[in-house]
Amino acid sequence: MQTDPLDRLVLELARLPGIGERTARRLAFYILKASQNGTGGHSLAHDLAHALTDAVERIGFCRDCRNLSAQDRCTICNDPRRDGTLLCVVESVQDLRAIEASSAFRGLYHVLHGSLSPLDGIGPSELRIDDFLVRISNGDFTEIVLATNANVEGDATALYLAQRLRGSAIKTTRLASGIPLGGELEYIDQATLSRAVTQRRDF
Amino acid sequence: MQTDPLDRLVLELARLPGIGERTARRLAFYILKASQNGTGGHSLAHDLAHALTDAVERIGFCRDCRNLSAQDRCTICNDPRRDGTLLCVVESVQDLRAIEASSAFRGLYHVLHGSLSPLDGIGPSELRIDDFLVRISNGDFTEIVLATNANVEGDATALYLAQRLRGSAIKTTRLASGIPLGGELEYIDQATLSRAVTQRRDF
Repeated sequence: MQTDPLDRLVLELARLPGIGERTARRLAFYILKASQNGTGGHSLAHDLAHALTDAVERIGFCRDCRNLSAQDRCTICNDPRRDGTLLCVVESVQDLRAIEASSAFRGLYHVLHGSLSPLDGIGPSELRIDDFLVRISNGDFTEIVLATNANVEGDATALYLAQRLRGSAIKTTRLASGIPLGGELEYIDQATLSRAVTQRRDF
Repeated sequence: MQTDPLDRLVLELARLPGIGERTARRLAFYILKASQNGTGGHSLAHDLAHALTDAVERIGFCRDCRNLSAQDRCTICNDPRRDGTLLCVVESVQDLRAIEASSAFRGLYHVLHGSLSPLDGIGPSELRIDDFLVRISNGDFTEIVLATNANVEGDATALYLAQRLRGSAIKTTRLASGIPLGGELEYIDQATLSRAVTQRRDF
C-alpha cells in the first residue's frame, strides 16, 4: 500500500528547519483547507508547488559573485551604478542581504557560501577561494572588505583571505566590531566588550 | 519584468500560518541550498512540490464522515472492527485525530468542519447538518457523542444538534468537562473550576 498523501505531505514539510511534526501537520491541514476552496490550478498548494519547482530550477549562482540569481549575472553585478573598485566578501547570501539592507555599501560582493572549518571538512577548495583570487586578479578592486562573521570561523576565514591577498596592492579591511548601537555596557557579553576596549578609536 | 523566483517562493511560503516574511526567506534559502545538492528530481523542493500537488489532488472528504481521505470512504469508516452504533461528532479533523490518539473511542466519527457562529456567517447549512441528520436516520447509531469544543461556539453547536436529535431514540452525550488530569486547583481558570464543581460526580 502506498503512503497516505497527507502523511507524505506532513513528512516533507517536517524536513524544513524549525518545523516539527506537529507544526507540519497543522500546516498540511491549513494547506488542504485553503486549497479546497481555491479554483483549479490557483490553490495555495499548487501555487506553492509551482514556486518551489520554479525557484529550484531557475535560480543558480551568479557567475561573478556567487549570489543567488535567476540570470547568469545577478542584479548587483549587472548594476552599472555600483562601485566596481570595492568588493565585500560575505559568508552567505543572507549576510549579503543584511548589508544591502543597511544601505552602507555600494560596491560589489563575493559570496563564499560558508566559512573555513577544517573539522567539518570545509577548506579553501570548498569555498572556491581559487576562483575568488582569479576574480580579484581580473578585476579593478582597490579595497576588499572581509565581512565574514565575527566568530572563530569567520575570523579564521578573513585571516586566511588576507594572507592570500598579501603582496597585492589591494587594501583589505574588516567590519568594525564592538558595542552594538543602543547597547548598554552592563548587558554586553565579555568578549564583545573586551574587543571594543582593545579596538577603541580616537574621539 | 517577471517576479524573481526567489521572491515569489518567499511570498508563497509566507502565506502559511505562523510563517512571516523573515522565516519564509530563511526557509526559501534552506530549500534552495538543500536542493542544489540533490540530484535531478529528488531535491527537497521537488519532493515538497510533488507532495503538495499530490495531497491536494488526491485528498478529499470521506463520503460518510467527512474526514480527510484519499479514498471514497476513510480508513475509519472502512474498518469493520469499529463500533457502528457509536458516533462521535467533532468540529475538525484535528479533533478527530486527538480523540483517536487517546484510544478511548472505538466508534465512528462525523466531522462538521467548523462550529455554529452566526456572526461569521456559519449556520447549519455551512456545517451540512442536514446531511448529518440523513446519515443518522440511515444508520444504526444508539449513542451520539457531541465532542465539539468546550467553548461558547462548541457548546452552542452541541446544543443545536441535541435539539435536532430530540425525539429520536438515540442517546446524546457530551464529553466530560472539568479539571484536566494533573491539574492543580490553584492554577485552574475560574470557568473550568466552576463547571467542575457544578458537574461534580459521585465518588
